[in-house]
Amino acid sequence: MRIEQDCVGTLAVPDEAKYGIHSLRALQNFPISAEKTNLSIIYNLVAIKQAAAKVNMDAGTLAADKARAIIKAGDDVLAGKYDDQFIIPAIQGGAGTSTNMNVNEVLANVAKQYSHDYIHPNDDVNQSQSTNDTYPTAGKMALLQHLPKLLKELDRMQTCLILKADKFSNDIKVGRTQLQDAVPTTFGASFHAYYSMFKRDIKRIKTAGEDISVVNLGGTAIGTGLNTSSYYCHHIIEELNRISGFQLKSAADLIDATQNCDDFVEFSSALKAFAVDLIKFSNDLRLLSSGPQAGLGELKLPAKQAGSSIMPSKVNPVIPEVVNQVAFEVIGHDTTVMLAAQAGQLELNAFEPIILRDLLDGESMLTRAVNTLTKNCLQDIDVDREHSREEVENSAISATVLSPMLGYERSMKLIKQAVKEHHSVKQLLIAQHVLPLGTIDDLFSVDRLLNRNETEPKEHAASK
Amino acid sequence: MRIEQDCVGTLAVPDEAKYGIHSLRALQNFPISAEKTNLSIIYNLVAIKQAAAKVNMDAGTLAADKARAIIKAGDDVLAGKYDDQFIIPAIQGGAGTSTNMNVNEVLANVAKQYSHDYIHPNDDVNQSQSTNDTYPTAGKMALLQHLPKLLKELDRMQTCLILKADKFSNDIKVGRTQLQDAVPTTFGASFHAYYSMFKRDIKRIKTAGEDISVVNLGGTAIGTGLNTSSYYCHHIIEELNRISGFQLKSAADLIDATQNCDDFVEFSSALKAFAVDLIKFSNDLRLLSSGPQAGLGELKLPAKQAGSSIMPSKVNPVIPEVVNQVAFEVIGHDTTVMLAAQAGQLELNAFEPIILRDLLDGESMLTRAVNTLTKNCLQDIDVDREHSREEVENSAISATVLSPMLGYERSMKLIKQAVKEHHSVKQLLIAQHVLPLGTIDDLFSVDRLLNRNETEPKEHAASK
Amino acid sequence: MRIEQDCVGTLAVPDEAKYGIHSLRALQNFPISAEKTNLSIIYNLVAIKQAAAKVNMDAGTLAADKARAIIKAGDDVLAGKYDDQFIIPAIQGGAGTSTNMNVNEVLANVAKQYSHDYIHPNDDVNQSQSTNDTYPTAGKMALLQHLPKLLKELDRMQTCLILKADKFSNDIKVGRTQLQDAVPTTFGASFHAYYSMFKRDIKRIKTAGEDISVVNLGGTAIGTGLNTSSYYCHHIIEELNRISGFQLKSAADLIDATQNCDDFVEFSSALKAFAVDLIKFSNDLRLLSSGPQAGLGELKLPAKQAGSSIMPSKVNPVIPEVVNQVAFEVIGHDTTVMLAAQAGQLELNAFEPIILRDLLDGESMLTRAVNTLTKNCLQDIDVDREHSREEVENSAISATVLSPMLGYERSMKLIKQAVKEHHSVKQLLIAQHVLPLGTIDDLFSVDRLLNRNETEPKEHAASK
Amino acid sequence: MRIEQDCVGTLAVPDEAKYGIHSLRALQNFPISAEKTNLSIIYNLVAIKQAAAKVNMDAGTLAADKARAIIKAGDDVLAGKYDDQFIIPAIQGGAGTSTNMNVNEVLANVAKQYSHDYIHPNDDVNQSQSTNDTYPTAGKMALLQHLPKLLKELDRMQTCLILKADKFSNDIKVGRTQLQDAVPTTFGASFHAYYSMFKRDIKRIKTAGEDISVVNLGGTAIGTGLNTSSYYCHHIIEELNRISGFQLKSAADLIDATQNCDDFVEFSSALKAFAVDLIKFSNDLRLLSSGPQAGLGELKLPAKQAGSSIMPSKVNPVIPEVVNQVAFEVIGHDTTVMLAAQAGQLELNAFEPIILRDLLDGESMLTRAVNTLTKNCLQDIDVDREHSREEVENSAISATVLSPMLGYERSMKLIKQAVKEHHSVKQLLIAQHVLPLGTIDDLFSVDRLLNRNETEPKEHAASK
Repeated sequence: MRIEQDCVGTLAVPDEAKYGIHSLRALQNFPISAEKTNLSIIYNLVAIKQAAAKVNMDAGTLAADKARAIIKAGDDVLAGKYDDQFIIPAIQGGAGTSTNMNVNEVLANVAKQYSHDYIHPNDDVNQSQSTNDTYPTAGKMALLQHLPKLLKELDRMQTCLILKADKFSNDIKVGRTQLQDAVPTTFGASFHAYYSMFKRDIKRIKTAGEDISVVNLGGTAIGTGLNTSSYYCHHIIEELNRISGFQLKSAADLIDATQNCDDFVEFSSALKAFAVDLIKFSNDLRLLSSGPQAGLGELKLPAKQAGSSIMPSKVNPVIPEVVNQVAFEVIGHDTTVMLAAQAGQLELNAFEPIILRDLLDGESMLTRAVNTLTKNCLQDIDVDREHSREEVENSAISATVLSPMLGYERSMKLIKQAVKEHHSVKQLLIAQHVLPLGTIDDLFSVDRLLNRNETEPKEHAASK
Repeated sequence: MRIEQDCVGTLAVPDEAKYGIHSLRALQNFPISAEKTNLSIIYNLVAIKQAAAKVNMDAGTLAADKARAIIKAGDDVLAGKYDDQFIIPAIQGGAGTSTNMNVNEVLANVAKQYSHDYIHPNDDVNQSQSTNDTYPTAGKMALLQHLPKLLKELDRMQTCLILKADKFSNDIKVGRTQLQDAVPTTFGASFHAYYSMFKRDIKRIKTAGEDISVVNLGGTAIGTGLNTSSYYCHHIIEELNRISGFQLKSAADLIDATQNCDDFVEFSSALKAFAVDLIKFSNDLRLLSSGPQAGLGELKLPAKQAGSSIMPSKVNPVIPEVVNQVAFEVIGHDTTVMLAAQAGQLELNAFEPIILRDLLDGESMLTRAVNTLTKNCLQDIDVDREHSREEVENSAISATVLSPMLGYERSMKLIKQAVKEHHSVKQLLIAQHVLPLGTIDDLFSVDRLLNRNETEPKEHAASK
Repeated sequence: MRIEQDCVGTLAVPDEAKYGIHSLRALQNFPISAEKTNLSIIYNLVAIKQAAAKVNMDAGTLAADKARAIIKAGDDVLAGKYDDQFIIPAIQGGAGTSTNMNVNEVLANVAKQYSHDYIHPNDDVNQSQSTNDTYPTAGKMALLQHLPKLLKELDRMQTCLILKADKFSNDIKVGRTQLQDAVPTTFGASFHAYYSMFKRDIKRIKTAGEDISVVNLGGTAIGTGLNTSSYYCHHIIEELNRISGFQLKSAADLIDATQNCDDFVEFSSALKAFAVDLIKFSNDLRLLSSGPQAGLGELKLPAKQAGSSIMPSKVNPVIPEVVNQVAFEVIGHDTTVMLAAQAGQLELNAFEPIILRDLLDGESMLTRAVNTLTKNCLQDIDVDREHSREEVENSAISATVLSPMLGYERSMKLIKQAVKEHHSVKQLLIAQHVLPLGTIDDLFSVDRLLNRNETEPKEHAASK
Repeated sequence: MRIEQDCVGTLAVPDEAKYGIHSLRALQNFPISAEKTNLSIIYNLVAIKQAAAKVNMDAGTLAADKARAIIKAGDDVLAGKYDDQFIIPAIQGGAGTSTNMNVNEVLANVAKQYSHDYIHPNDDVNQSQSTNDTYPTAGKMALLQHLPKLLKELDRMQTCLILKADKFSNDIKVGRTQLQDAVPTTFGASFHAYYSMFKRDIKRIKTAGEDISVVNLGGTAIGTGLNTSSYYCHHIIEELNRISGFQLKSAADLIDATQNCDDFVEFSSALKAFAVDLIKFSNDLRLLSSGPQAGLGELKLPAKQAGSSIMPSKVNPVIPEVVNQVAFEVIGHDTTVMLAAQAGQLELNAFEPIILRDLLDGESMLTRAVNTLTKNCLQDIDVDREHSREEVENSAISATVLSPMLGYERSMKLIKQAVKEHHSVKQLLIAQHVLPLGTIDDLFSVDRLLNRNETEPKEHAASK
């Protein structure tokens, strides 16, 4: 064991540890759960340290030998050689300082082998930086790094939905408003509607992604940029973008960017709106596939596993069910993010660790949920054409189409009579000689019921 | 009393009532509270009915005499002559049908005086329409109608904040991270940060406003547009924009637009993010003005009322306090909107009434909260310059500025010693002859502490 | 206009106003909405003032003439003569001080006619009191006052549910787990389950009601009871209970009771849990009554109003729908209450006004929602016996009953074959001569399917 | 690899796997995150299987040899020998069926070595059971199992708080309402108030614990108890309590208990109310310890780690900060639990897995948060006596004590003058010869300011 010192006192650190006293104290202070800080945050912090070393070297405030050693050490960490040295719990007090110091300490210790000089975790590795600018910047980078995966899964789902919309475009079904039978539509229209809905989610998520690309790196402790060189301030983001491939932008007001978390709230809101849409979608899938005998039975989801330990042969919509639950969790995270964001005070929000934890968790869970939804459910989904068409034919409410011709009141009476006498409205119309047969056939044709091929004004006899 | 009939049965309606059986049933069914449907929704429904009458007339599906009578009746309603005839409770079952029928009934009855023919609430006034497209469209119009008021108050607040940022630009104060003393900043920078923060809110609210400008009018019951003429479909939005002055856009996918409420979730999220920022701002104001003797006492809020029934002369920050509470309510509404939105099923979301109620309520409350915040608090806010400057001078943590020169460890020891011995770090430095006097003066100058006039790289002796 | 003065300055008050400068300032400071402070809070504050006057008189700290005048003035207010004098907006800064001062001012001005001496709003009417103890106490009294109404409606609903449970006790239906057909049950069992569920809500609401019966009256500003006589402290609750009929209890720790709001959080949680149960119940009603032709169609809700402006004869489940929305709003309020409660600081929670507003609103809305649910829906609800029984007979999953005899695997194969070949499992069993006819009849008897008349161990041949 | 079969098809299972096809399918279907089902749920499911085997054996429906083998296999699992065989993700579709089948499969495979007969996962291990009764029962057992740990940490915190209340009982400090100076109190009173607050949390958590002790075991699929023997029904809970040490109670209405989750909502609400109180407490600690130079500086929290990577010697309140974040997460979980609970439909709530995951997570995090709060913060907390006393002496608002004697108006003027002229009110009083010196001394004595030793009615000269 080696003895290290900080402003609080001394502590014995295991000899083989690359982390130091600051990390170890955090481990003792925050034994909240087994979950460690997301490695994605760690790796992006390392990238920031590498960029800072390069820029500080160019600025003449860090010796070249030290800078190169830090960069090399960063490469080692990014290669995954020291993953076990990042020991800070995900949920931590201190606004991310422990995570930042963990990276500073590990890099300083690993860099030793590459340098003749002593490398100091604060003076060298952390030079021109503060937790308060590096940590949220690394957190945003982590969110942005994951974003393409989420968008890719969304794209895959969208492709699948469009294919289904196309495939089911002539498969008529009863529409339902307020769960009561309404005028008809097609499964094609339904699946296209889901596609259109998720298109907005993609747009919102992308917008939120752009908004969190604005970072406060360079602001150091509170946004004034104290202890940076002006060279550093002008070059750090550029260098970071160069080595990381991101397109980060420097916040116009670094004081603001250091203390306010509304961009995270916005990002969370985009995930939440997506979760809300996923719930609607999953619920529709579960409802339309209810049965097999005493349910709506219009959609056929692929069977994925036995559904009951007691009821033989039961199959449940397990994929939409797990999607529902991920959505519930993401909406719960939105509450947490909101609470943490509104609790910010003065020059800093001390609660960024839980914000980043929950956003990264939600982003990842949604990615995986969409993946299993597409692969294990949507791709092999089918409709029960016959049953759905029969339902439309039996559905008296389709006679809404008569309203412009016969008026609301008379149509109402016909429909009530049809339901009561278990006839179809069409049969009633024919029997009552109300309208010419051709007109009746035309009115109840699929195209008319779906309001397709609309080329000229229809008559509104009842009103005109 | 006159007897009216619907598909359920008959009901006696007061002779003088312009509303009819549908409205009366709703009144009996939904006695939830005294709050009626927002008049703004009513008036915008009327505008839709007027536009529809005109377009249906032009399409040849509604007699000109009837159309003109409906339009005239609409003008009467919009003049406020029949406000008491709109009796539907704000919280209602039926996805807005009762509100839509209330408007149909009143317009039909008022229109009678202007027409020789009988005007039917459904066949004529509601022609080519359904609650499911008119109600959410009117709701969105109501939200959009109020938006400029909110944005105007926000603009006024922003102007005020920029003025204060300018006025306080040289008023130095202790920065605080995690409520502990940190490196200094100015009140100017603080107020500019609030300005920058609210700028993002304005952007988000505007974006959300644009997104709810997309409406499903023309889709009728479920988005297929059943029972509309193609002429109507192609002209209704244009006509509505012409008479109302909005710039509504028709949804590309009317099926989707009729059943999904994520645009309302997005709008609510924008209000919520703004509420979060208002909480942060109000809390800062309350904290910085705490005292008068045993608090931070850096900000001076204008006294607005006696603060205690028992403690004489006590004055409280009542304006930020009321803003906090409005923000809490808006965030509560966001939960409600989310719950209603995720509960949509198949071709419709039956819960739009509570969504619209809460969004309109939140929009209005935020408008008024910002108004009182600007007028009764921000405009006359001031700082305690002397006290704040003294605090900076007494604050040992300002010695962070030494770190690049002396290193983290040595600076730490100096600061600890200063705190312990009740000296300032500057005094210690001078006494210890560590640095030349000129350097010390330069380091502790306001410009250096605030990292201003940054023209060339500073030395990082400790590290290099 | 008369000129009044406070610690801020002077203000002109209308001559006829019974309220004074403190009230008027609040009106100007908090123009958030048209909603005034709940009269129930006002009236209970008046009761507190009356009790305080009596006890202060007995303690010898308030002249008898003044005390009697205050009590008489209180009677006038409680008779509703001055309702329009209570002008404080429901949402207000200042932790309720404005509401308390409004009552102090009105009582002092009204009392003048009954006294020879000048009655001071603070020194006399508010004697031994502070907003910080009277306001939350009055708020709790208001909540408690409304509680019996809510419980009465709940009782009425429970009576109705038990009647339905009894009436439907032999009406068999398909059970559904995860929306897929499961083993059978009865409507009787279903309605009894709702009864059992709401029983827990009643218990929780009562417990929460008891917990908010603990009040901090006597603690004055921060719970130390400064400026009260010991006589007052020992007698005020007793006197208040005597005149109001409540059974309030004094908090053991008045400092705690003055600053913490977790009892309101608990009350809100009880309402929220009830709201969650109402959603589940309403959703079940809506789902089981879906149709009339293309839905489950097992429950028949009474038709309450025409359901569509465009689709003639459509009837929707409007009562459960409005209940859903009330529940969403109550859950939104729970978020607001939580936010306000967690924002309390040091010796007081400044945000009690929004807490009380939302709790009173939720309590009232739930009362009315349950009322309309019972009266307009549950009382006339019925089941479609035939259709439901047919569904059970057609449902292959009922063959789960075979499992103990034939084993899980073999039962599974039988069920799959039955579904595939559109036979009933019973038919298959008979055809395949697997079991004796009597055994088959017994297994598929209603009593066996429902697991009734369980008198002796059944055989588990497959396993044993 | 061995080939296994279910109602969906066949799948290759690794030869060495003790789990089977059902588990493997779940692993493929639910790749949501790396988190597995909580082992505590697994172990309690095993206990249920052991109890069921015993009771089924006694009922004569399971051969003794099989029963004994299952029980032995259970012991092996409980000894931790097969932890790696429980592969089901924590977030899973299927209402827990996969977790239950995982246990059935592992037990059946492990039991083979102890039995001559083939042991079937469904017919034998799962005999008389369904996921729908075993899974929520095991979940409740897991919650109950952890509860004593949470309560023990709470007890430890309470002991600490009472000790501090005692220790600080004479340490006077300025009270603050709405963050403005108010009448004085002591740190003893403050810490006692926290103690009183948490006492209610303990009560609520215990009550919620009792309410989740009511389980639906014996109800099988939907609560009818299909496929159980009556012997089993009458003995299973008793046997389970015997071997597990719990005091579970059978629900009076098993149908209800199988489909409704309000007891989980209640449990979550109790955790949430506790979280709200923890936020209030942590915020107070952070606020009172703000400084060291430009803050309130009344409380001294033990230094636990260096607080900044850039500001040397900065120490932050990291322990309350981490507690805040845990509380935010728990409140987020409450949203998730609510959403899952309200989504239950008909005979089952399919979303119990996410409910149990979040409740177990919250319970555990709160336990650990309280542990670190007590150990790393409260135990060594101290007050800055001198500074706090000085603040009281300088605080003009203490002159509230004059009000009963001089009246509200005159006291107000004295206080305003004192603040303006930077005198103490006491000095002013002496200078102005308003009251006899002895009276002044008495009024401003600590006992009087704190309203202690209250033995006789005080005079209310201003009023009487």
